[in-house]
Amino acid sequence: MIILGIDPGLAIIGYGVIEYKNSRFRTLDYGAITTPAGMDVVDRLQMIYNGMNQLFKMYDIDEVSIEELFFNKNVTTAITVAQARGVILLSCVENNKAVYEYTPLQVKQGVCGYGRADKVQVQRMITSFLNLKAVPKPDDVADALAIAICHAHSNKVGKTLDKFLKK
Amino acid sequence: MIILGIDPGLAIIGYGVIEYKNSRFRTLDYGAITTPAGMDVVDRLQMIYNGMNQLFKMYDIDEVSIEELFFNKNVTTAITVAQARGVILLSCVENNKAVYEYTPLQVKQGVCGYGRADKVQVQRMITSFLNLKAVPKPDDVADALAIAICHAHSNKVGKTLDKFLKK
Repeated sequence: MIILGIDPGLAIIGYGVIEYKNSRFRTLDYGAITTPAGMDVVDRLQMIYNGMNQLFKMYDIDEVSIEELFFNKNVTTAITVAQARGVILLSCVENNKAVYEYTPLQVKQGVCGYGRADKVQVQRMITSFLNLKAVPKPDDVADALAIAICHAHSNKVGKTLDKFLKK
Repeated sequence: MIILGIDPGLAIIGYGVIEYKNSRFRTLDYGAITTPAGMDVVDRLQMIYNGMNQLFKMYDIDEVSIEELFFNKNVTTAITVAQARGVILLSCVENNKAVYEYTPLQVKQGVCGYGRADKVQVQRMITSFLNLKAVPKPDDVADALAIAICHAHSNKVGKTLDKFLKK
């Protein structure tokens, strides 16, 4: 199964494409779709949409795993990121891909086995699982890979997202 | 000039298509794109995207006027609406339409001449300007028409959005 992990944003959208087969990972690609701060929001949304569609063209992605948005102290930022996330979700459905959402807690749980893992622990597990020489930068890219790994692990135990939640 | 006014939402997206020529309005269409509450969010976003594209096919729209999102006490709702708004903005840019944003205060100002107008006053002005027999229902539709009228008036005085703001 090929999984696309997405860390949503407006300026930086981290992505990671991994294959998960026989409990082993293979890293196909990772990076970020970036949009310039000075550009109109509508044009940035279009850049994100095109970037997502490009990923779906390049890789035979089976499922998409994306982080859920939660309350942000800066609500203006939350609205801006949510608009971008809407466009990301649209690109998934337009490309007929199933989308799974995970909370940050679930991602930590899915990668490290417990929800209180810190950033360094999560990044160490990512490099280990994916056999990487260094932690991918920026953090958004590492986060996207974590989100993808979390989805792989949630499937591994043969549970739906809901059951996974109750663990 | 043909203006599409949009009141963004996830369940109900009000729209109004009006022509503004020689300081006179002609109402071409109004209504709502609606999505069922029980449907997956990604599918609802796709319905909104398709509905918007349909409007751009049906009418030779010159410009789009849309309400800005502000802090909402229910941040989860704000995120949900913002995701839908992202898809709406994407459909505008994919159809090469210029988009203008207005705050609720600016809409009241643009329709009634002052920002403290209440809902009934705004609706009375809409029916008068557009020569309607009754106030369009639900409120989202009336709001969309108000947003379109506001944009027409902001152009009428030959001012850009920024200058309009400083009135």
